Amino acid sequence: MSLDRLIEKIVEKQNPTVAGLDPKLAYIPDFIKNEAFAKYGKTLEGAAESLLVYNKALIDALYDIVPAVKPQIAYYEMYGWQGVKAFYETVAYAKSKGMFVITDAKRNDIGTTMEAYANAHLGKTDVDGEMFTAFGADALTVNGYLGTDGIKPVVNVSKVMDTGMFVLVKTSNPSSGELQDLALYNDETIYRHMGTFCEKWGEELMGKYGYSGVGAVVGATYPEQLTELRQKLPHTFFLVPGYGAQGGTADDIAGAFDENGLGAIINSSRGIMCAWQKEQCCPEDFALASRREAEKMKTLLTAVTGEIKLPD
Amino acid sequence: MSLDRLIEKIVEKQNPTVAGLDPKLAYIPDFIKNEAFAKYGKTLEGAAESLLVYNKALIDALYDIVPAVKPQIAYYEMYGWQGVKAFYETVAYAKSKGMFVITDAKRNDIGTTMEAYANAHLGKTDVDGEMFTAFGADALTVNGYLGTDGIKPVVNVSKVMDTGMFVLVKTSNPSSGELQDLALYNDETIYRHMGTFCEKWGEELMGKYGYSGVGAVVGATYPEQLTELRQKLPHTFFLVPGYGAQGGTADDIAGAFDENGLGAIINSSRGIMCAWQKEQCCPEDFALASRREAEKMKTLLTAVTGEIKLPD
Repeated sequence: MSLDRLIEKIVEKQNPTVAGLDPKLAYIPDFIKNEAFAKYGKTLEGAAESLLVYNKALIDALYDIVPAVKPQIAYYEMYGWQGVKAFYETVAYAKSKGMFVITDAKRNDIGTTMEAYANAHLGKTDVDGEMFTAFGADALTVNGYLGTDGIKPVVNVSKVMDTGMFVLVKTSNPSSGELQDLALYNDETIYRHMGTFCEKWGEELMGKYGYSGVGAVVGATYPEQLTELRQKLPHTFFLVPGYGAQGGTADDIAGAFDENGLGAIINSSRGIMCAWQKEQCCPEDFALASRREAEKMKTLLTAVTGEIKLPD
Repeated sequence: MSLDRLIEKIVEKQNPTVAGLDPKLAYIPDFIKNEAFAKYGKTLEGAAESLLVYNKALIDALYDIVPAVKPQIAYYEMYGWQGVKAFYETVAYAKSKGMFVITDAKRNDIGTTMEAYANAHLGKTDVDGEMFTAFGADALTVNGYLGTDGIKPVVNVSKVMDTGMFVLVKTSNPSSGELQDLALYNDETIYRHMGTFCEKWGEELMGKYGYSGVGAVVGATYPEQLTELRQKLPHTFFLVPGYGAQGGTADDIAGAFDENGLGAIINSSRGIMCAWQKEQCCPEDFALASRREAEKMKTLLTAVTGEIKLPD
């Protein structure tokens, strides 16, 4: 019902990294695509098969050193239901390897509709008395624009399934301030207000390490806000995008961590996925290039956090 | 690139109704489910087949009197990729019958990720030079919390595909005010500010009837705000949920329309889908019961709008 399982994996691996799985066809070596296209043609099935083969190889290369993956569902929806099937298989494969899976879907709705999303991505689906796992991740990113009605169903499912969520608070993109930085009448900003909601929503999902099951998305590209929010939101674990390709550095994310080196997990998508292209190594070596990049990132991050410890 | 095709269909049918397709298994007559379960078992496939058969019958019963359908993707994701396949087939079937399809997915992200969503739901997907339709709706609901970076990719795809979007402005749920009604420093509210963004984002997608391709979601449950926003946002077409089951009445939505009876399309999901249960008619008659309910709704709404006309 909290993010404790994620926290334990971070401590076990001594690595606060989540590997984003946002596979574009352009990132995937030709030999994988050619084999998939030979089998399924240049079709949505062929693309989906490429994604899946690529993801599995990355997971194989990362699971013993990286605690979590974050597949971004947009890159699978783009390939239709066939892509969504590859998404399902990616989640299941990562879980089978012991990784914590954060589905990045930024879902939002109300009441029974949000309950449907929560069951889809974190819970179970009832088909006339038989129970099935539709997608089955460990945590889901959500958007809080609709207020408590949009969050409560995810809280309820998380209580039963021991899962959690990350609410968009201060996102990493250049225009995030257009709405999120606006000042409210009492001189609060919208993102701070959303952060305060996270603390409140999390009360029902408190874990044993001081963090609740309601985390927040806070971008590495806004280091001041990251530091400020870490201090203001002591029970809210952060998922931090924007490191690497979007410009955030290890120094930028220093303020995201607490005195135990906990409090945040830093995402790298392109950096890890496209390491073979950056290295200009042999395409067959792509998965090991990703592992090398993940090790480099671990070294950089733990230079900031020091030893990562569970609180006494 | 705008919502003109929707507007023309509303005028042609003289009906500002969109039928929500949010099919829960509980809404579907047993004879449909039993046939699907006999074929596929009580599985996600069996559930997905039930949804599709039910949706197609509803579409057959509605397409000549209702201009648009709004499938809510959460109810399909709940049944895994199998459900998402039924979603794809529902969209394709509704389009083949000439209906305008609004995918209610409230998607939100930034940059290339949002571009992936836009291509998935409105555009085309490139598989190594071959182009495919992943889902192919006419409009998509989106959430604007991330600012312009999250909207621009949908604008760009809409320019090419002649599609549009509806941005969440003032949602119909009880807690919508927790964030959306907060006053900004200049005494604006967040929902008004989001509405102003819609006018701005829509400038690149202006249609020939005075409305742009960037519409807004405004709930029937907040009639004052609906009226206020209609006056404040002259180029923003409204998608109005919350009518019927959520409590909004025909009087409540009167302020959503302009002097031509345009400016808004009113959603009914449960009202139309569950008409056979409310009528307690023979389950085999479910689709005609939905048609009767849709006709009743059309009568109530056009009593408010009067004759719906294209502007001179």
